[in-house]
Order: sequence, then C-alpha cells, then structure tokens
Amino acid sequence: MHSEHTFKQYDAELEALRGKVLEMGGLVEQQIVQALEALVKLDSNLAKEVMVNDQLVNALEVQIDEGCSQIIARRQPAAGDLRMVMMMVKTITDLERIGDEATKIARTAQKIFDEDRMYKPRFNEIKSMVALVREMLRTALDGFARLDVSKTVEVARQDELVDEHFRSAMRQLITFMLEDPRTISMSLEVLFVAKAIERIGDHAKNIAEYVVYMVKGKDVRHISVQEMERETLEP
Amino acid sequence: MHSEHTFKQYDAELEALRGKVLEMGGLVEQQIVQALEALVKLDSNLAKEVMVNDQLVNALEVQIDEGCSQIIARRQPAAGDLRMVMMMVKTITDLERIGDEATKIARTAQKIFDEDRMYKPRFNEIKSMVALVREMLRTALDGFARLDVSKTVEVARQDELVDEHFRSAMRQLITFMLEDPRTISMSLEVLFVAKAIERIGDHAKNIAEYVVYMVKGKDVRHISVQEMERETLEP
Repeated sequence: MHSEHTFKQYDAELEALRGKVLEMGGLVEQQIVQALEALVKLDSNLAKEVMVNDQLVNALEVQIDEGCSQIIARRQPAAGDLRMVMMMVKTITDLERIGDEATKIARTAQKIFDEDRMYKPRFNEIKSMVALVREMLRTALDGFARLDVSKTVEVARQDELVDEHFRSAMRQLITFMLEDPRTISMSLEVLFVAKAIERIGDHAKNIAEYVVYMVKGKDVRHISVQEMERETLEP
Repeated sequence: MHSEHTFKQYDAELEALRGKVLEMGGLVEQQIVQALEALVKLDSNLAKEVMVNDQLVNALEVQIDEGCSQIIARRQPAAGDLRMVMMMVKTITDLERIGDEATKIARTAQKIFDEDRMYKPRFNEIKSMVALVREMLRTALDGFARLDVSKTVEVARQDELVDEHFRSAMRQLITFMLEDPRTISMSLEVLFVAKAIERIGDHAKNIAEYVVYMVKGKDVRHISVQEMERETLEP
C-alpha cells in the first residue's frame, strides 16, 4: 500500500520533471531568439553561445528521459499520470530538435561571418517567421504547463502561416537569385535558415498536439485543423 | 503473483509490438524506394501511392503508441523491458517522420509532373543518397530486431557520408543554377529532395542509437562517432 507520504513524494517527483521540461523549453526559446540575433547582427560570439548551449539542451533531454523511465519503473503511474510521462518523453524529443535547428541557424550566422559578407541579405521575412514560431512554442509550452488545450488550434493555424511565410521567402529569394546569380550561395543559406524555422514551427505544433493527448486522451496528430477544432474546443 | 501463463502472454504482447514496429519500418522503407522511383520516372500514380500509404504509417504510429502505453499500464515492465518499450515509442516517432520526408519527395515528383518539365534534372547524387539512407534504415531496424549494436558505428559513419553527398549535390546545383538561371526553381526542388533524404539519414541514425540505449542502457545520442565506437564495440 502507498502511504499518503509516498503519494506526496510521487506528485513532487512528477512536478519536478514537469519543471525540468519547462526549463528545457525556456532554454530552447532562448536559443531561437539568440540564433536570430546572431544572424541579423552577424554576431559571432552569440552564434558560439547558441552552439555551446545546445549541449545543455541535450543534457537536459537525457536527464528528463532518465527521470521519466525511473518514475515509470518505481511509481507505476496509471491513466492520466502515465499519459503525462509519455507526453514528456515526446515533448523533449521535439524540444531537443528545436535546439538543433537553432544551432544550425547559429552555424549559418557563423559561416556568413567567416566567409561571405559581400551580399548582406535582408532578414525581414526571417524575422517575422521567428516571431511566429517563438509565439507558437510559448503557447504550446504554456498549454503544457496549465494542461490547457484551448490554444492548440491557434498553434496549428500559426503553423500554416509559417508555411506561407516560407513559400513567400522562397519566392523572394528566387527573384533575388535570378536578378543577380552571384547571390545564389548566400540566398541558399538564407533559404536553409527559413527551412529550419519552418521545422521549429512543426515541432511546436507537435508539442501542442501532445498536450491534447495528455488532457483529452485523444490522439490529434494526424487530423485536419477543422477536426482538431472540434476535439479541443468542445468541453 | 504473476503466473507463468501471464508471463508468456506478456512476452507475446511485447513480441507483437516489436513486430508492429518492424512492419512500420518495412512500410517506411517502401515509401522511400517508391518516392525515389516516382521522382526519377516522374510517375504520378506512384507518387500518389506514397502519399496515400503515409496514412497507414501514421495509423501504425498511433496504434503502437497505444500498445506501448497499455503494456506499461497493465504489465509494469521493469529494467530491460521498460527500456524496450520506451525505445519503441521513440523509434516510431522517427519512422513516422521518415514517412513524412518520403511523402514530401513524392509531392515534389507530383509537382514536377504537373508543372515544370522543361528541365529534367539528373538524379545521380539523389539516387546514391537514397541507396545509402535505405541501407542505414535497414541496418538500424535489423539492429532493433536482433538487439545487436555491432553496426551502430557503421550507421553513424554512413550518416556522415550522406551529409557529404548532400554538400556535393548542393555544389552541383549551384553550378547548374549559375550556368542557367532559368533552372533555379527546379534546382531548388531537387535541393529540398536532397535535404529530405539527409533528414531520413538522421532519423535512421537516431533509431540505431536507441538500440544502443536499449541494449547497453547507455545514452549515445549526443556523443562523437569515436566515443560511440568505444561504447558499442566493447563487450
């Protein structure tokens, strides 16, 4: 039999893990913001900081993974608690990959800093995209923290907006390359940055969808935005 | 107390889940092969088949996820068995994303078929890349099936090779675009295909690394190939 004391300790353990996931989320959000800044200002030190911090993100992933396995083995969580643990395992995979994408952006900033500064690209579309995915990530993590699914549809819609921005950035870059083929290499770098941000949006959307599974016990990963609206907005 | 009967049933359940993961892996491998064929032959029907089959892959992911949660809740697996279940949960996430990348390639094939057939690109580098990632996936799944980590380092090295191919494809495409800017749009399509294949390689490498965790209880996700060699080749 579990005593009340054991239950309290169990809740505390689960809470501590949730806190670690949110800590990881905060770190990853910082990665995104700093990677953009490194790129726009061509700040090599900041780019390096993003790359170094990625190891913290990776270490947190391993640590939380361990914690989740331990809590399953020792506490045998059922129903809602088990869903919570499983969703943490999935969430940190996406957070880690957001960190990877931010690191790629920082690496591009470093590369532009080192090599090719002849054509300084404008980053307007990139900035809008980053603002969007950052908000998506925040909303998703906020939903995770409060077990609130009321914003999931919003995140899914923002993801569609990010995809539109990506296509628009691509059209702009093609025009740019056609006008002056000497900008092709640099334009491709910018294109890959846009691609990385688009990925970050996908990961944020994944995280928002896990929260629905956690709260509603329903898998909404492979359905349309309309169906998701039905699932999340009904009481 | 668990009876022997219960244990046998439990083993059978775990085996059935492992079988489903391998089935999903087989399906995803087929997706990759068909997506390439759709692209090279500009076969619109095959491209559609890949897109339709992606729903099977998605459905399998949801099904296996459910199965994993159920086995944890009902059987409370410990140590090695728990690691096995957790690794299945992670493996299917990567398999599902390989399916997504294959679907993107199929969509590109469809797009080229529909719109822009003026410049038929050569797909030599793409073919080599697909051959490599297909082998990586097979080796990773084979390691999963046999709980064998002896080939993990090989997969990691092949992943580096895929990255080299990607860079070489990119250089080729840049030359191509510089020579004839009218090929820019098409070249970007091919570049994104190359990017999708490079991603597939990353996912295959992830799967191979999960097997090490499962077998050795050691997390090798964020270490160098040299360190991985030490971890997997020592008895």
